[in-house]
Amino acid sequence: MSFGVLPRVVALGGGHGLSASLTALRRITDRLTAVVTVADDGGSSGRLRDEFHILPPGDLRMALAALCSDDNVGRTWANVLQWRFAGEGPLAGHAIGNLLIAALWQQFDDPVEGLDMVGDLLRTRGRVLPMSSVPLEIEADVLGLDPFEPDEVCTLSGQSTVAKSRATVQAIRLIPEAPPARAEAVQAIMQADSVVLGPGSWFTSVIPHLLVPDLAKALLTTTARRILVLNIAPADETDGFSASRHIELLAEHAPGLRLDVVVADEQFADTDPHLGSYVASLGGRLVSADLAVRGGAAQHDPNRLASVLHEVINA
Amino acid sequence: MSFGVLPRVVALGGGHGLSASLTALRRITDRLTAVVTVADDGGSSGRLRDEFHILPPGDLRMALAALCSDDNVGRTWANVLQWRFAGEGPLAGHAIGNLLIAALWQQFDDPVEGLDMVGDLLRTRGRVLPMSSVPLEIEADVLGLDPFEPDEVCTLSGQSTVAKSRATVQAIRLIPEAPPARAEAVQAIMQADSVVLGPGSWFTSVIPHLLVPDLAKALLTTTARRILVLNIAPADETDGFSASRHIELLAEHAPGLRLDVVVADEQFADTDPHLGSYVASLGGRLVSADLAVRGGAAQHDPNRLASVLHEVINA
Repeated sequence: MSFGVLPRVVALGGGHGLSASLTALRRITDRLTAVVTVADDGGSSGRLRDEFHILPPGDLRMALAALCSDDNVGRTWANVLQWRFAGEGPLAGHAIGNLLIAALWQQFDDPVEGLDMVGDLLRTRGRVLPMSSVPLEIEADVLGLDPFEPDEVCTLSGQSTVAKSRATVQAIRLIPEAPPARAEAVQAIMQADSVVLGPGSWFTSVIPHLLVPDLAKALLTTTARRILVLNIAPADETDGFSASRHIELLAEHAPGLRLDVVVADEQFADTDPHLGSYVASLGGRLVSADLAVRGGAAQHDPNRLASVLHEVINA
Repeated sequence: MSFGVLPRVVALGGGHGLSASLTALRRITDRLTAVVTVADDGGSSGRLRDEFHILPPGDLRMALAALCSDDNVGRTWANVLQWRFAGEGPLAGHAIGNLLIAALWQQFDDPVEGLDMVGDLLRTRGRVLPMSSVPLEIEADVLGLDPFEPDEVCTLSGQSTVAKSRATVQAIRLIPEAPPARAEAVQAIMQADSVVLGPGSWFTSVIPHLLVPDLAKALLTTTARRILVLNIAPADETDGFSASRHIELLAEHAPGLRLDVVVADEQFADTDPHLGSYVASLGGRLVSADLAVRGGAAQHDPNRLASVLHEVINA
């Protein structure tokens, strides 16, 4: 990275977690690429997948909205596209931005063309890409689904099912297996100064990126600084997992992945006395700080996260 | 109108007819206001009215698309918003532009604010206004609905029903009666150099403007040149009506309305030997020209219509 030029950063994730990292990162740079999971099968996105066999637009819409320009036009359109129809009718629950993206995808061959058009409308700081042009399903091997058979391994299908499950996830798979990555996403990772993985639903928004072979290879071989942002606290799908276990899971799904920096909320880090030495044993550095929003929700405060990421990215 | 300044023109109508007049008028001026009927109850618009009790967006969307800028951004977004979802699912048949306008109307108090936002997106040449902020119903008294009772007057309800009926329409009403006009539409008519009424479905897109008292009053009192564009040929709802009868119907619904110019396709005009003298008796001038698209469809060719309107407006 040249002195005086803003860093090139790639953020990988999905859902509200990616929205949080993008909201922080947009304060640091506008040379930003979001790479977004495309396995959602719930809510408005799931209904659109069922109706039109397209990529799930919801996480892409949220990422675009998170990167909207600061001016009135960008903010207004971002709010407009995030808005959902109410009531009980056939449109109820659909975010209008999802419908617009779905319409664009059926009019243009390349899904990235439609996303770029919405990006132009929102005057986004950076670009939003799907991790693959193929809609994906998530399948998870879980333990303890049936309390009377605690040692039995079962298979759960579908991101929305896996994300809500409190059974212990052992491993996840994508269907189709080994999907193609978007070439622009691979290129962005290879050319980045920093890549930021997480926060987000661990099995359904973070680990899936490591299961796309060309993305995993790019993450393993890029010269970019590799930054992992842990969640403020475990969600349903990783209930009871320590901070170290979260990191270990990444290694299990992507052997050889090295991390340069692990960013953790100090409260979560403090519950795991081995975290610092574990991160060090992987060649990385632990940065632990007070990152949570006030009021008790397990969410990153964008300003606190931006402050830590600014330091880590520009170190 | 000052020399060298483009004329201020207001076009009143609805549906494909208004789209045709706007496509012609945009070649003449960009000081253009479209005033659009809001009584549609069929198709995508009708479903959105049923679900959300909003104005029908379809005719407004078509008018906005007709006024899109000539550049790539304007043309592309106009095509995008005109596109309809296919298939058999809950979204099938909805134009995405209708859904976007419906979403904007539920987020902003004033429907014109949402229309102006779509206008900005399409970089429209001119502004599109609903004739009223109140959704309207059309009711028609018709003769001959029952072939066994040819003299019985029946009432038909709903624009889509009336527009398709081949029974002889005697008169139409709006429900609610005497709805409020949009103040911007009244102001645009009063300040215009020319106002253009029609072409379009006579009973459901043209005459309704005369049934909004403040619009009718503005049309009667403005100093603008009053131009009526007749349809290429009668549609279902005016099947068998002569050109003169079309004009007479306007006078029946808006006593005192004076017309400066009546523009008619020469083939339709030729079927009515009294048309010229009838128009003259109303103080107007008949301009008859070859206006139809080639290939037999009863539609105006935008270039031919633009050529005639240019002459009439700038005379």
